Amino acid sequence: MTSFTLTPEVLRHPDSYKWTLYPQEVLPLWVADMDFAPAPSIVAALKDRLEHGLGYHLLRGDPDLTRLLGARLEQQGVPPLPEGGMRFLPGVVPGLYAAVLGLTAPGDDVLSFTPIYPPFLSAIRDHGRTARTVPLLQGELGWDIDWAALEQAVTPATRLLMLCHPHNPTGRVWTREELAGLAAFALRHRLWVVSDELHADLSFQGPHTPFVTISPELEQRTLTVTGPCKAYNTAGLGIGAMYSHNLALLDRVTQASAGVMGHPSAMSVTMWRAALQDDGAWLAAVLDQLRQNRDRVTAWAATVPLLRYSPPEATYLAWLDLTRHPRAADMQAFLLSEAKVALNDGPPFGDGYQGFVRLNFATSPEILEEALTRIGRALAQE
Amino acid sequence: MTSFTLTPEVLRHPDSYKWTLYPQEVLPLWVADMDFAPAPSIVAALKDRLEHGLGYHLLRGDPDLTRLLGARLEQQGVPPLPEGGMRFLPGVVPGLYAAVLGLTAPGDDVLSFTPIYPPFLSAIRDHGRTARTVPLLQGELGWDIDWAALEQAVTPATRLLMLCHPHNPTGRVWTREELAGLAAFALRHRLWVVSDELHADLSFQGPHTPFVTISPELEQRTLTVTGPCKAYNTAGLGIGAMYSHNLALLDRVTQASAGVMGHPSAMSVTMWRAALQDDGAWLAAVLDQLRQNRDRVTAWAATVPLLRYSPPEATYLAWLDLTRHPRAADMQAFLLSEAKVALNDGPPFGDGYQGFVRLNFATSPEILEEALTRIGRALAQE
Ligand SMILES: Cc1ncc(COP(=O)(O)O)c(C=O)c1O
Ligand SMILES: Cc1ncc(COP(=O)(O)O)c(C=O)c1O
Repeated sequence: MTSFTLTPEVLRHPDSYKWTLYPQEVLPLWVADMDFAPAPSIVAALKDRLEHGLGYHLLRGDPDLTRLLGARLEQQGVPPLPEGGMRFLPGVVPGLYAAVLGLTAPGDDVLSFTPIYPPFLSAIRDHGRTARTVPLLQGELGWDIDWAALEQAVTPATRLLMLCHPHNPTGRVWTREELAGLAAFALRHRLWVVSDELHADLSFQGPHTPFVTISPELEQRTLTVTGPCKAYNTAGLGIGAMYSHNLALLDRVTQASAGVMGHPSAMSVTMWRAALQDDGAWLAAVLDQLRQNRDRVTAWAATVPLLRYSPPEATYLAWLDLTRHPRAADMQAFLLSEAKVALNDGPPFGDGYQGFVRLNFATSPEILEEALTRIGRALAQE
Repeated sequence: MTSFTLTPEVLRHPDSYKWTLYPQEVLPLWVADMDFAPAPSIVAALKDRLEHGLGYHLLRGDPDLTRLLGARLEQQGVPPLPEGGMRFLPGVVPGLYAAVLGLTAPGDDVLSFTPIYPPFLSAIRDHGRTARTVPLLQGELGWDIDWAALEQAVTPATRLLMLCHPHNPTGRVWTREELAGLAAFALRHRLWVVSDELHADLSFQGPHTPFVTISPELEQRTLTVTGPCKAYNTAGLGIGAMYSHNLALLDRVTQASAGVMGHPSAMSVTMWRAALQDDGAWLAAVLDQLRQNRDRVTAWAATVPLLRYSPPEATYLAWLDLTRHPRAADMQAFLLSEAKVALNDGPPFGDGYQGFVRLNFATSPEILEEALTRIGRALAQE
């Protein structure tokens, strides 16, 4: 079965975006995938699939995948979906864009917390909607919702709240109380909610709480997007799903993107089926490694002067606040040239995040250690 | 290496759309893929790819694939493309839709010949454009362009001509003279042209003539879409490309579909690279079999009373005119229930094609023979 040593030589496969964008001497801790080999059961299922023809597969939605994902969602407390309540996507980002197109009109306002995974902002802006961004509050213990700012951000043209749960890049897993507050807010202002729950299976806080399970009224106002690519490290095989108890919402999104949105490939469908049928040992081992790596980043961060950071509660992204460092004005470029470590730069995550960088710690302890050492050294130099 | 016997038992793989949509006793000669196993070099490349990570691949366009496809197009006479002149798609249909969105506005008119591959018509209509359809003329020797009707179909709101070359479903390969006539027409009326050349490698007439090679002025007016899925039988691995010498056209299409379209999967990229590097033996054998099957359909058609048919010059689709048959009013359903053969029904290919059916002969001689026998018997009964 596939597995490989996590050394730069092996990881620098020519198809890897992460490992080929920067020169050889750079350690790439940027784009959100993991350096780990995929789950053996997934690779086995894909190899087996190659023994069969590669003609058109079930383009209207694979019934086995629908059943498997439906069962998984019900385990998480999602009330059974109506027929047609789950629709497959070629990736989660196309779902975010299509949702904005289908649920809002040009000129409408859309709410998003910042910092945020950049395609949230481009999904709003690329087709003429206006982003009403609400910065999260940076407390001593982590990133919190600024409820007053959220209320103030609502305008008569606001139609949609886009939620990222767990949240990229802060790693927040919104609590039941926070989700209930957001639910009340959305209902009070009659907003649609798009909840991106792609990172759900990478929580360190125990079972995921889908937003839609917070209150029955949400079922009619919420469209959730999810997919296997973060937990199973399969971003190269684009696939996702959107689901809602309100078929009219899904129909609007389907219609707005009709024909333009590609289908997930046959191999992606096979992959997700295998992921949903996996025994869980691979994912448990990955979570274990991620938790150790996170704790290592946390211990390291405590030793770095001027750095502020809150340990993520989910996923493998550390959102580092270096705004007090003398090189804050060009932090990502500085670390790239001086530490030879590639991180994601703050500004694409929203206005006001110059001096922040996002570090992806889903790699071997050795590579992580080397990167942290290099970053620490570079930061100390200046 | 993968290969399998072409028996219904083997072909009825649960992921196959073609072989699972209808009951077991039905022979499915409908959706446009082939029953043949994929090329061994493609399967080998895909298996090898699975030995590596499945994280994000080169989403901005794989440089090897760009180079390989560029070289292939230059072999076909396409002048070298400018940097950025080739953009990858998750499938050809998303490219057709995006082209309509980017090159026309709601309310504009778009020209297409009929009968036509149905997504041409839905790409025009789904987002509020108007299809101006021009029926091909049914001569004794084949399907011809009705030049007078084409001229009459142009309105002041006509912006775009959509061409299918080779043409699905008639199997016409437009001659240099016909292409020159279309070029003059497009230039005279200042139309954009979208040329779908997906079936190019399945021509029985020798090397393909890309539309854009007909005249240098076309380079600024034409956007061509292509892909590997017809020739290499890989429709389950969606991928395609659009190319143009006019970057502004591509930019309009890219912008109109920004974020919504999805990326081709990493496996699809590997597949197309392998296809472009294959030694050609597999494709030659496939073309040989298709030519034999076509000739068998032609010989059979001559024995069927009331049937009109012109042998296709490319691809594996036979467009059967049974409008004179007593069961013309429900021909597809009649053959499904009486012959137990599933064909594509005429009407989705344009107004006026009730009584036509499309037969896909890309199967084993045995399955084809059985299907033709069943169809002939059912038609004779009535
Ligand atoms: C919150 C979130 N949504 C969507 C995506 C991207 O999903 P996909 O690759 O399926 O488009 C990411 C990737 O990092 C993400 O973090
Ligand atoms: C002319 C033409 N264009 C496009 C397609 C579909 O291409 P894809 O599956 O890549 O969307 C077909 C499939 O039959 C076709 O015949």
